[in-house]
Amino acid sequence: MSATQWAEDAAATIMERCDRLAELTSMDGGIERVYLSPEMARAYELVGGWMKDAGLAVSIDPAGNLRGRAEGNQPSLPALVLGSHLDSVPDAGKYDGILGVITALSVAEHLVKSGATASLPFAIEVVGFGDEEGARFGATLLGSYALGGGWNDEWLDLTDANGVTMRQAFTDFGLDPDRVAEAAHSVEDAIGYLEFHIEQGPILEQKDRALSSVSSIAAASRYMVTIHGLSSHIATPYDLRHDALTAAANIIAGVDEISRSAGTRANVGEISAEPGGVNVIAGKATFSLDLRAGTDELRDETFARIWAMADRVCAEYGVTMERTCIHTADSAQCDPFLRSCIEQGIEQAEGKEAFGLISYPGHDGMAVAGLLPIAMLYVRCKGGISHSPLESVREDDVAYGAEAFERAILNVADRLHERAERQPLTADIVLGMGA
Amino acid sequence: MSATQWAEDAAATIMERCDRLAELTSMDGGIERVYLSPEMARAYELVGGWMKDAGLAVSIDPAGNLRGRAEGNQPSLPALVLGSHLDSVPDAGKYDGILGVITALSVAEHLVKSGATASLPFAIEVVGFGDEEGARFGATLLGSYALGGGWNDEWLDLTDANGVTMRQAFTDFGLDPDRVAEAAHSVEDAIGYLEFHIEQGPILEQKDRALSSVSSIAAASRYMVTIHGLSSHIATPYDLRHDALTAAANIIAGVDEISRSAGTRANVGEISAEPGGVNVIAGKATFSLDLRAGTDELRDETFARIWAMADRVCAEYGVTMERTCIHTADSAQCDPFLRSCIEQGIEQAEGKEAFGLISYPGHDGMAVAGLLPIAMLYVRCKGGISHSPLESVREDDVAYGAEAFERAILNVADRLHERAERQPLTADIVLGMGA
Repeated sequence: MSATQWAEDAAATIMERCDRLAELTSMDGGIERVYLSPEMARAYELVGGWMKDAGLAVSIDPAGNLRGRAEGNQPSLPALVLGSHLDSVPDAGKYDGILGVITALSVAEHLVKSGATASLPFAIEVVGFGDEEGARFGATLLGSYALGGGWNDEWLDLTDANGVTMRQAFTDFGLDPDRVAEAAHSVEDAIGYLEFHIEQGPILEQKDRALSSVSSIAAASRYMVTIHGLSSHIATPYDLRHDALTAAANIIAGVDEISRSAGTRANVGEISAEPGGVNVIAGKATFSLDLRAGTDELRDETFARIWAMADRVCAEYGVTMERTCIHTADSAQCDPFLRSCIEQGIEQAEGKEAFGLISYPGHDGMAVAGLLPIAMLYVRCKGGISHSPLESVREDDVAYGAEAFERAILNVADRLHERAERQPLTADIVLGMGA
Repeated sequence: MSATQWAEDAAATIMERCDRLAELTSMDGGIERVYLSPEMARAYELVGGWMKDAGLAVSIDPAGNLRGRAEGNQPSLPALVLGSHLDSVPDAGKYDGILGVITALSVAEHLVKSGATASLPFAIEVVGFGDEEGARFGATLLGSYALGGGWNDEWLDLTDANGVTMRQAFTDFGLDPDRVAEAAHSVEDAIGYLEFHIEQGPILEQKDRALSSVSSIAAASRYMVTIHGLSSHIATPYDLRHDALTAAANIIAGVDEISRSAGTRANVGEISAEPGGVNVIAGKATFSLDLRAGTDELRDETFARIWAMADRVCAEYGVTMERTCIHTADSAQCDPFLRSCIEQGIEQAEGKEAFGLISYPGHDGMAVAGLLPIAMLYVRCKGGISHSPLESVREDDVAYGAEAFERAILNVADRLHERAERQPLTADIVLGMGA
C-alpha cells in the first residue's frame, strides 16, 4: 500500500521546507532557534508566507506563537488546533517540533484547496509554538502554556544567558509583555488539539511501522540527589566507612531494577563524587534522577519505592540523602475520542491495525491538555534519535503521516457532524464523545 | 601505666620538632615539601643539626636521603636502619613520615647518650627519605627504592610540573644524577629495617590502643575503568538501552560486595558520565578502582572475581569495558623475627598484649623489603586521618611509641647477641631468625 498522490507530493514539500527552516539558525554549523529571537522572526516570515499561500489567515499571537486559520462551514466556528513547535534545542535536528507544524500546514492546505474545509463543522488552526524546548529561559512549553491558558506572568522576570529578561525579549520581538495571557484559547473557541511529532524513540522502527497514536504523555519528575558520607583513606575498614559513592551506586542499581519492574523509564545521566581521589573514599556523591511514567499515580508509587530503597541503602552505608525536585510535570492522557479518530486515520492510511504508545518525552500537548482534549500522531524516526543533528525521518513515512493526519481531522468532523447540527461545538462536547 | 620519663621528654621534643618542620614548606598556609627541593635542603639542615647533637654521623646519600649513623659495639658493623620520609603531599599534615624520622632520631639519641649503643651488635642508622609520596615526579618511594637497591635510572627523565627533569633536580640539589644507585645498602652492611609511622586508619582509635605492629604492607593495584555504551533519550525502552552509567553503578556495587567478602579494601573514588544530561542515558562512564589486599595472591584472586562480575554486568547491559592499570605494587610481608621484637617492645611499653595490623597505605618499607627484612610500629592518629592538615597524634601515644621503638631495637640486639658473638651479622641471619 502506498500513500495517496497528494500526500506523497506533500511529503516532498514538507522535507524541503524542513531543510529550508534548518537554515534559520543562530549557531554556526548547527541548528539553534530559540523563543522570541531574530531567527524565530525569520522563521515566522517564511512559514507565515507558506500559510498565506495555503489560504490561511496568519497572525502572531500575544505569546509569540505563529497561527494560521482556515474557517470551517461558517465563519468563527471553534477551532481544531493542529500544533507543534518551531523552536529548537542547541545543535538540534531538523524535525523535532518543526515536522509537526509543517505537516499540519500541508494538511490544512490540502483541506482548503480540496474544498474540504467548506464542510467542516469547526475551523482549522495551525499553530507553530514559539517555545517548547525552554532553551532560552529555562522554563519550557511557554508558547503552549499561553495557548492552553496556563501562562504565568512571573516568567517574564526570567533571564536568558545574556541577562535579557523575557519581558524585554517580548518588547524586542514587537509584543506587549503585559498581554501574553491573551493568547489563551477557551473551551468555547477551540474544540481540541492534535499534534504530529517524531517518536523520539525506537519502538516504531523496532515494530517496522511508520505511525502510531499516543496513549498518554508521561508524567515526569527530575531530582538532584546528594549522598553525604565522610571521606577517608582506602585503609578505612568497611564497618567504619561512610562511602557516599558506593551508596549512590547501589541506589542507581536499585532505581534501574525498580523502574524496570514498574514499567516506567528512569535515567541517571549525571554523576560526580568528591573529593575525587583514587585512594580517597568519597564523602559526597551527587546524581540526577529522571523518571517518566504513563500515569501520575505510577510515577508517584515508583518514586515512593525508590526513596524507600534509597533510605535502606543509606542506612546500610551510614550516609544521608538530600534530594531536590528540579522539575515535575503531570501526565497528559490523550482524549479517547480524538485518539480513536487518529487511530482510524492510521488504519485508513497504512492499512494496518493502529496502536498507541506512551510518550516518554514531553510535548506541547501537555501544556494544552489542561484546557482542551488532546491527541497525538507519532511518526517513526531513525534510531529513535532526537535532539541531535542525526535526527532523520523517511519521506514515505511522512507521506503516510500526512495522510493519516488529514484522515484523523475528517474522522473528527464526520463523528461530530450530527452533534454540530444540534448545537455549537465546544471542547466539552469533544470530551464527552469519548466518555 | 605511663611511659618512662625519657620517653615522655622525648615525646615533647618530637612534637615540637614536627611543628618546626611544618614551617619548611613551599605552600602558603599549608605544608608541602617535595623531593630535591630547597625546602628539603632546609629540612636536612635542621634535622641534620639535631642528628649531630644526638651524636650521629650525618650525611646526605647519593639519592638525596638524609642519614645519621651511630656505631655499635665496634666500628663498621652492619646497620639496623630506622627510616621514614621527610617529604609530603600538598597541603599535608605534620606527621605522615616526619613523625617516624623524628622519633627514630630521638630513640637513637637516647641509645647513644645512655651508652646503650656501645653494647649493640649492630650500628643504628636513622634515615629521612627524600621521596616517598611521589608528589614531585609522579613515581613514588624514590628515596627508599634507592636505599633498597631498586633504583631505576630511567626515572631521571621524569619531569615535575615545571618541566624540570629529575636529572636536573639532582644537579640543582648538589648531587650527581649518575650515582644515585650508590645509595643502596647490601645484605652485608644492613641487617634490617624498622619504621615508625602513624596508622592512617582508625583501628587503634577504635580499639582504644596507642600502638600495634604491622603484619604486612598491602598489595595494591589501581585501574581506570571505562564503560562504553550508547547515549540515547530516556524514552528508550530498557531492552534497547546500552546504559554505561547504570552498568558502572552495578559494577561498583559488586566491587563493594566482593571486596568485603574477600577481606580486602577497595575504593571507587572518581567517577564521571558522558554526555551528562538529566534525560540522556550515559554513553560512557569512567571510574577509578583501587584495591588493597594483605597478599599478592588475595589481590589477584579478588581482581579476577571483580572482572568476572564486571563482564557479567557488561553482558547484561549491552556495554563493553576497557580497563587500564595505572599503578601496581606487590605486598611486603613484615619479617616475623623483627615483628616479634616490635610486639615485645609494645608489650614492654604499654603493658598490654600486642597485635599486628595489615597496612593498607603504602610505606617506604615496601621499597626496602626487596633487600632487607622489615617491620613496622604503628601509632594511633586521630580519626584515622592523614594527608590532611587535620593529621593529629597524642603526645602520650608518641611517648609510648618512642619507648616501644627503643625496646624493639634492644630486643633485636638481645636476641642477636649470641649469633653475633659467633659470626658477623647480615640481613640473611635476621631473615633466618624468624624462619
